Amino acid sequence: MEVHIITVGDEILIGQIVDTNSAWMGQELNKHGIRISGITSVGDELEDMIAALRFAFQKASVVLMTGGLGPTKDDVTKKAVAAFYNVGFTFSQETYDRILEMFQKWGRPITEAHRLQCFMPENATLLVNKMGTAPGMWFDEQGKVLVSMPGVPYEMKYLMEYEVIPKLIQRFPTQSILHRTIHTIGEGESRIAERISEFEDSLPPHIKLAYLPNLGRVRLRLTGKGNDPTLLEQELDEKVQALLPLIQDLVFGFGDTNIETEIGNLLKNKGLTLATAESCTGGYMAHLITSISGSSAYFKGSVVAYANEIKMQQLGVQATTLAQHGAVSEATVIEMVQGLLERFPADVGISVSGIAGPTGGTPDKPVGTIWMAVASRHGDYRTQKLQLGKDRLRNIEYTAIQAFNFIRQFIAQF
Amino acid sequence: MEVHIITVGDEILIGQIVDTNSAWMGQELNKHGIRISGITSVGDELEDMIAALRFAFQKASVVLMTGGLGPTKDDVTKKAVAAFYNVGFTFSQETYDRILEMFQKWGRPITEAHRLQCFMPENATLLVNKMGTAPGMWFDEQGKVLVSMPGVPYEMKYLMEYEVIPKLIQRFPTQSILHRTIHTIGEGESRIAERISEFEDSLPPHIKLAYLPNLGRVRLRLTGKGNDPTLLEQELDEKVQALLPLIQDLVFGFGDTNIETEIGNLLKNKGLTLATAESCTGGYMAHLITSISGSSAYFKGSVVAYANEIKMQQLGVQATTLAQHGAVSEATVIEMVQGLLERFPADVGISVSGIAGPTGGTPDKPVGTIWMAVASRHGDYRTQKLQLGKDRLRNIEYTAIQAFNFIRQFIAQF
Repeated sequence: MEVHIITVGDEILIGQIVDTNSAWMGQELNKHGIRISGITSVGDELEDMIAALRFAFQKASVVLMTGGLGPTKDDVTKKAVAAFYNVGFTFSQETYDRILEMFQKWGRPITEAHRLQCFMPENATLLVNKMGTAPGMWFDEQGKVLVSMPGVPYEMKYLMEYEVIPKLIQRFPTQSILHRTIHTIGEGESRIAERISEFEDSLPPHIKLAYLPNLGRVRLRLTGKGNDPTLLEQELDEKVQALLPLIQDLVFGFGDTNIETEIGNLLKNKGLTLATAESCTGGYMAHLITSISGSSAYFKGSVVAYANEIKMQQLGVQATTLAQHGAVSEATVIEMVQGLLERFPADVGISVSGIAGPTGGTPDKPVGTIWMAVASRHGDYRTQKLQLGKDRLRNIEYTAIQAFNFIRQFIAQF
Repeated sequence: MEVHIITVGDEILIGQIVDTNSAWMGQELNKHGIRISGITSVGDELEDMIAALRFAFQKASVVLMTGGLGPTKDDVTKKAVAAFYNVGFTFSQETYDRILEMFQKWGRPITEAHRLQCFMPENATLLVNKMGTAPGMWFDEQGKVLVSMPGVPYEMKYLMEYEVIPKLIQRFPTQSILHRTIHTIGEGESRIAERISEFEDSLPPHIKLAYLPNLGRVRLRLTGKGNDPTLLEQELDEKVQALLPLIQDLVFGFGDTNIETEIGNLLKNKGLTLATAESCTGGYMAHLITSISGSSAYFKGSVVAYANEIKMQQLGVQATTLAQHGAVSEATVIEMVQGLLERFPADVGISVSGIAGPTGGTPDKPVGTIWMAVASRHGDYRTQKLQLGKDRLRNIEYTAIQAFNFIRQFIAQF
């Protein structure tokens, strides 16, 4: 089985929303060894949708569509699907009753738009959507399956998890596709490729290696295909064991993870707690850390000291330090992290101060100048300076990632 | 001219990265009135890329491809393009010299992979990429244009801005497509559709209305097409003026904006400053605010009081309050915001405490219970309770958005 995903909506084409649905669907299908051969996004135009369906079914035996099922007038997916199959519409009393019940529970009257939503292409099997008003639709014609789902992420996710994936696995037998992902930080793609070029050349044709660089990190992904999943697991594990010694200093995690999760695991395993003092990152480090469920076990909190007066009043940075060295300086980040650990009962602290940009630079401190300090309760500390570009959001994100790596290296000693 | 975007990479199909490139490209092209008819993502497979090129050129006169141009071995875009045009390769000495110069500047030796990167399809016109080693490639055959760019976002953005868009505008005359976007918060898509249904029915065929819901907000986008941009501007402005009175209470902004930007503008215009005290949002509010360039003019900072001891020590919440009412309570958020404004020299403060989930709920305070308080220096305050679902990241994001709306409503009185 090969799957093609179609996402519908003018808002995707003009970049008003980022298509995160297809990324999530790709991840989920991939976990079940289901290969995705392509993703197509089209606008709310009948003929574009029909052309996309034809293109998708050229290669794929399954097409999953999201979007264009809502109650408002810009949604035309159902018309496109009916035209594609050359069928008419029929009223689904069952769907109407379910929407009516939901609205009665909310104490709101049902609208005419919702009644119109209950007309379905004749050949659709409906999939109950417990998260919203529009049901999913399953079509099975000439050995090929089309599924249409709402574009609202949590509705689509519910349908995928409880209806679509179980039905697909039952409907099609699958070949195994397995992955191993190794997360690295500290070297670029080309350098890593040079280090491991002999290893890469030694890979058999059914195992592929991909480099996935992203802001200072590179993921290495080994993908194997085969009919015997047990054998394939074993082959991939052997390849990972052969690869690791070549890049040991760069590796921070495996599989479906990220650096904030790994920092959390390291802290938990060592029984340590963390606090942050953030100027230019503006709370982004704290946000990444607390986006992990269970982070309250190792994260105490943060002072976002955006204004200089907050650096002084809430972190005890000396006015003379700010006057002599400036807010973006080694001296300031050292006082920030020391002040933080005096006030917060954490074992490890990190402080960051920099010029995120795009404005605010000076000749000797251009935009992208970042200082950071990591310290322990016992008084030992390390500092680091970064010189980045002019893109504000990129600087904030890159700084947070580098700070996490700095913490990782610092606590390795504990 | 209609553009189709093709993004290349297995990592997109399996959801290891979200395809933000095409969203950004869609935004930029749209600003120049260039219509995007579709986006297709394919893996690193020769025949899939060629099939995607054929599909894209069915309708589009321009295809923009990103990805698959790096120096590592998984990149096959150039081969696919050469096969599509049925041409061979030629060595670009100019590109080699440029890469050599970059590596000499960095003090690093050039690699064999970089030399191989300099072989280009014979019919390519090269576009200089000042941000990386792989140049862009421009093909102009049979009245249709194909552009291939690296997938690294800042390299692609550089090429789009300085090379591709200027050349496209020169190469093709364009019809005008103009948008008006109105941002609302406080009502769902269907309710708004009911309120404005007469307005919507009165729209002429060349002006379309779309509803773009996202976590408590709904954007309304009017799109007009026409040959006379001045007339079209005027028509759209008239439609906006007719629409506004119907939804005035819900509107918080226009055009390319978001609620954190509008909160910033409101604060600036009223000469007010803000600080935040965050528990369950974990710094996300501070991050959104400081992601706006110039936010230091109105944002003082934040206390991320993730642990209860930080709520007491850094915000002065009473131990008895926590014991009697719990950390997630009206009493606690009131003390948090009052403690914040005693310590931070801000005019307005907001505090948030809740159970983001997915675990940590109790029978009387289930996951998704959120309290917030907004207050001014003068002592007046308001509180609000939300009851949300179980998805941690959704709860964090939704809470931050609702808190911004709460601030917006609070400072409207000043």
